[in-house]
Amino acid sequence: MTFALVGGTTETASIPGISAAGGNPELMAVTPTADVEIVERGEPISTDAIPVSPTGCPTPALLTRAVRDLVDLDLAVIDAGMARPPAIETTVVADQPGGDIRSAMPVPEAEDIWERARTVGRDLSAPLTIGETIPGGTTTALGVCRALGVDIGVSSSLPENPLERKHRIVSGGLDASDLSPGDLAGAPREALRYQGDPVLAGVAGLAEGALSTGASVTLAGGTQMLAVVALLDHAGVEDSIEVATTRYVADDPATDIHRVGERFDVRVTVTDPEFEQCDHLALARFANGEGKEGVGMGGAIAIAQERGHSMKAVRETAIQRYETVPTARVDTPSEGR
Amino acid sequence: MTFALVGGTTETASIPGISAAGGNPELMAVTPTADVEIVERGEPISTDAIPVSPTGCPTPALLTRAVRDLVDLDLAVIDAGMARPPAIETTVVADQPGGDIRSAMPVPEAEDIWERARTVGRDLSAPLTIGETIPGGTTTALGVCRALGVDIGVSSSLPENPLERKHRIVSGGLDASDLSPGDLAGAPREALRYQGDPVLAGVAGLAEGALSTGASVTLAGGTQMLAVVALLDHAGVEDSIEVATTRYVADDPATDIHRVGERFDVRVTVTDPEFEQCDHLALARFANGEGKEGVGMGGAIAIAQERGHSMKAVRETAIQRYETVPTARVDTPSEGR
Repeated sequence: MTFALVGGTTETASIPGISAAGGNPELMAVTPTADVEIVERGEPISTDAIPVSPTGCPTPALLTRAVRDLVDLDLAVIDAGMARPPAIETTVVADQPGGDIRSAMPVPEAEDIWERARTVGRDLSAPLTIGETIPGGTTTALGVCRALGVDIGVSSSLPENPLERKHRIVSGGLDASDLSPGDLAGAPREALRYQGDPVLAGVAGLAEGALSTGASVTLAGGTQMLAVVALLDHAGVEDSIEVATTRYVADDPATDIHRVGERFDVRVTVTDPEFEQCDHLALARFANGEGKEGVGMGGAIAIAQERGHSMKAVRETAIQRYETVPTARVDTPSEGR
Repeated sequence: MTFALVGGTTETASIPGISAAGGNPELMAVTPTADVEIVERGEPISTDAIPVSPTGCPTPALLTRAVRDLVDLDLAVIDAGMARPPAIETTVVADQPGGDIRSAMPVPEAEDIWERARTVGRDLSAPLTIGETIPGGTTTALGVCRALGVDIGVSSSLPENPLERKHRIVSGGLDASDLSPGDLAGAPREALRYQGDPVLAGVAGLAEGALSTGASVTLAGGTQMLAVVALLDHAGVEDSIEVATTRYVADDPATDIHRVGERFDVRVTVTDPEFEQCDHLALARFANGEGKEGVGMGGAIAIAQERGHSMKAVRETAIQRYETVPTARVDTPSEGR
């Protein structure tokens, strides 16, 4: 089995206040790079520290890495437009970050990225689980879904979801591309080109490629993976697919993952990381509704549980990793709250 | 042991008449991508055909792949600015192609590329052999050496070496950067920034990183690897290093690899692919002084011979590979001769 991790960046993330990943624009650009390095090597290589949110919530990469410490997983790191290439082996499907969705065409190469990822997905050993890391990704997911005319709701990595701000940004993005909601129904690659990000294109392509070989595919994540489900549906992909996520996404009133699952006939697996049972100050922040999901955390935890590992073992392994590497504590920017 | 293959592109290659790789500018840009895919998978993925020179000489990647068919080698593909990312796992050390050396600063990130590659080189399992693929690379190698004030001579992948043209281009490059020959002696990263390409920076960084861990390092190639030897010398790297190349480079009157080897105290291994004993029309072109070296061919052949495989077995395996995949025959552009 393969765990594919698709990382990238979008300039959309540098719009103030829409993402917790990294805490400041510079760190945000390097967050996906550090995330994939943490999952592959156990610690970041291209930066000195583990990314944390403005309030100190560490990256979910720690949990996904903890699962890799416990379970033997083939990891495939897919670079879908990371601003800084990680110092590990990757397969590159997009060679530049996505643009701001308020520009006319933020992902001009969306079709090419999807196609390259499809080629890659055909070669990964089954079953395939796909995770993602891209700051600002829930906003571009919302953008794509509005272009498709699909309502999935939108979660956030911040404790207070800046939903109104995201909708305003997406409306600006639709205007800039001269689109009304639903205009790109049935044209998923166009929706990505005008309102998406390179990671969504990469995940969709990987999934389509793997499904075409008969592999079973699990999308590990929240809002963004629901957007990928919608993209595949609009691409005419009829194979059944699963979504695995955490309780923090499933319990979020801003999204309704089960309703979306039913609508697209997708099986949804929800795992509970039980962070509230954890007296570790940093990881306990997840229990407060921060972080929620990302870097395939929910799907990785589901795999660990299937293999008989307790949630406690996963948490403790993650804490060990957290304690051995410095964290990138940054000044809390007011717009990040 | 690891066989690292560093691929990239430089706009310098699109100057008419300086490289045989690919035969036309568009194919030239995809040649390193196809080369690393051939060595990794046995056939190109991102293009339909094997790159050939204007006269039909196939890429030396076929020979390096043939050695991998015979010998178990850990392959590490390093993307140092490939114009098109290959559809296989790579480690990215440069995220864009190099510029034309006749511009003021063709490789602005040279120091960063060297540094990233150094990090990567520390992690590769010893001993390490490094090959390269970058169309136009002998011209940038000449540029770097002139900036350092080192005379290494310059070979060519074309049967008639356009030496005068290369020197004219390099002189233009020095002028554009406001430099005289030797001005950057002792400043190898500056020499790369103003006169080099991203692959030279990547190879030098990889070698330095591996040497720093005590690994033995073999540079597999001709002119470009001699430039790397000079770069490492000017960077103050004192560990001994080896160069492995083919008879076609060693016999080329335009270079004097043994003299350069003595000057920098480098052990030079020369292998003879004996292509003249081969009645295969395409591969026989190598015997006419085309291709000569590249994609680590000489070093790979040396490894095969150390492991007891005959040159005949290597050639026949390469011919099998050649016969199963179409070749990209292109119209012979007059300036390519």
